[in-house]
Amino acid sequence: MTSKATKIVIITEKLISKGVLNIIEEKGANGYTLVPAGGKGSRGVRSVDRPAVVDAFSNVKIEVITGSDEMAHDIADAVAAKYFANYSGITYLEEVEILRPEKFERH
Amino acid sequence: MTSKATKIVIITEKLISKGVLNIIEEKGANGYTLVPAGGKGSRGVRSVDRPAVVDAFSNVKIEVITGSDEMAHDIADAVAAKYFANYSGITYLEEVEILRPEKFERH
Amino acid sequence: MTSKATKIVIITEKLISKGVLNIIEEKGANGYTLVPAGGKGSRGVRSVDRPAVVDAFSNVKIEVITGSDEMAHDIADAVAAKYFANYSGITYLEEVEILRPEKFERH
Repeated sequence: MTSKATKIVIITEKLISKGVLNIIEEKGANGYTLVPAGGKGSRGVRSVDRPAVVDAFSNVKIEVITGSDEMAHDIADAVAAKYFANYSGITYLEEVEILRPEKFERH
Repeated sequence: MTSKATKIVIITEKLISKGVLNIIEEKGANGYTLVPAGGKGSRGVRSVDRPAVVDAFSNVKIEVITGSDEMAHDIADAVAAKYFANYSGITYLEEVEILRPEKFERH
Repeated sequence: MTSKATKIVIITEKLISKGVLNIIEEKGANGYTLVPAGGKGSRGVRSVDRPAVVDAFSNVKIEVITGSDEMAHDIADAVAAKYFANYSGITYLEEVEILRPEKFERH
């Protein structure tokens, strides 16, 4: 059994990851995945201080698969409102097809 | 030259990654990518023991680009059947457009 | 406000990541994300030398969200032309929906 779902990806500073994860849980998501990340954003602020060293991952890429498009937008809006005036971050949505969709239902 | 393909993403415990990769190769995939991951699943089991420490990545995110949707489902089904009763894991599919599609043909 | 965009994903050897990032910036992208990666490609070359050890991430997964499909193809073509005869790498495109699309406009 498969089912369409919306995945939200939030790439931001590791410093605020705990706060972002709190928002994700408050909004009712059943899980999330964190991946270490480095990079450069539109503000020209390099997370990787020295361009030659790409081993320093001071950002985090957070992925959440949601059961509803509404929850996805809700999380994205709350994170942007709370953090993105002061911290660098980007957020985007992707359509995915989940297997075992019952894991993503809200209880 | 580009071509549509299906990417499978399997996020699961690092402990079983070797077994999952064996299934992927048995099913005929030409390659895979591994990324370190942490997170929280629907069972409420945190891979990251202490919420404040997001550096502990005890999960793995495995991505496989397949030349056929059938192979994608085949891999996903085999991994779920063998492991997901006893280990936490999620699997989803994404549509991607591959460049140099000849690399993903089965030989 | 949301807007469709093309995300390019380049998975290649860490060794050439600086050169790949230079191409990405020359082509006008406003940012990129780097994630450590390991894996096995179609050439049968394992980045992870010992199969049992999935902790050795000698590849890098680079993601770029572009404001135009043309820029996405432009980056992919330039990277493949410069590196993929001699280094292992794959490139694919994904459609994403970006929030705050103004961050991805070219200045």
